[in-house]
Amino acid sequence: MSSLPRRLDRVIELLARLPGVGEKTAQRFALFFATESTELAKDLGGELSGLHDAVRPCERCGNIAEIDMTGSAVCSVCRDGRRDGALLCVVARVQDLLAIERSGSMRGRYFVLGKLLSPLDGVGPEELPLGQLAERIRADAVAEVIVATPSSVDGEATALLLARELGHLGVRVSRIASGIPHGGDLEFADQITLGRAIDGRRAI
Amino acid sequence: MSSLPRRLDRVIELLARLPGVGEKTAQRFALFFATESTELAKDLGGELSGLHDAVRPCERCGNIAEIDMTGSAVCSVCRDGRRDGALLCVVARVQDLLAIERSGSMRGRYFVLGKLLSPLDGVGPEELPLGQLAERIRADAVAEVIVATPSSVDGEATALLLARELGHLGVRVSRIASGIPHGGDLEFADQITLGRAIDGRRAI
Repeated sequence: MSSLPRRLDRVIELLARLPGVGEKTAQRFALFFATESTELAKDLGGELSGLHDAVRPCERCGNIAEIDMTGSAVCSVCRDGRRDGALLCVVARVQDLLAIERSGSMRGRYFVLGKLLSPLDGVGPEELPLGQLAERIRADAVAEVIVATPSSVDGEATALLLARELGHLGVRVSRIASGIPHGGDLEFADQITLGRAIDGRRAI
Repeated sequence: MSSLPRRLDRVIELLARLPGVGEKTAQRFALFFATESTELAKDLGGELSGLHDAVRPCERCGNIAEIDMTGSAVCSVCRDGRRDGALLCVVARVQDLLAIERSGSMRGRYFVLGKLLSPLDGVGPEELPLGQLAERIRADAVAEVIVATPSSVDGEATALLLARELGHLGVRVSRIASGIPHGGDLEFADQITLGRAIDGRRAI
């Protein structure tokens, strides 16, 4: 039997549904809310309660977007007129989009797949939003698709699938480079990374 | 510049105030709320918003307690009539109280200090609720105080302070045992733990 109030048990149960949060961490968070910062609980509670009325995946790319007065949601990247509409970067998750944005190296727009091809987890090609992606490519007259899925087995499989599926749309499909990270030591790089770095060598 | 809606930036800022949560983890939680489980955001938001009206530290011991209809808060342990009122266990935090409750070995009640003596962090004896503790001991006619502060420098210093301060109240002050944990290997125990295990040996 827990000696905590039911209300707090419920908060712990909900917090434990967050990614990477177990029972112990959830209890720690809940006790922090209850004992050290009821102000934080109140503020965060207010923000979370209305979150689904304020933000939603962008209708065009899947990035997180503010819902505007007309009830539609188009993200800041899709609204940015200075972006090159002919360049489309395909990513697995919103986190990846944010990471690329932080690098400041992408002058085009994005398309968030939401998942990767994963035969082991039962995710087949029909579960990926390929129709929406093709539609986006046609509507925006995209000239090049940069596939920025992770350099994992699922990420590579998804990249190959995209290259095959998008080839007949007359669009150039490219893959982000894989190799030694900036500042990385060759001595400690794994064999696959080293192999890719050599295969992907460029003239200087 | 972040390409996230302001609302989500605010959620990230608030989540990052939780213990052990940095910017990256807060962003991960916020995106999970926004993309994968707006239902969770709504439920948790509701629970957190009203948390400070529902729970509060127990007036008697400092454990988390439900606020009742009269507006007072007495925790389930303090309300439990089967507890031995003459036995009082002093802990540093509510988490420690919950851990002892889970062990099922404590038949008395508790007193949560909220902090430990810590000269390095500028926490002196005057910052500990010693007056309240003495009052509780008198009011409940406590016969034995079990000091269950952690086995750290601050925990031990607090235990010594309590032994000195409570001695003249005519109450027996004891300290929880320190030694090899259950299933622990002597080979891997540190010297201080081994020393304490030998010093605290008991006849079998």
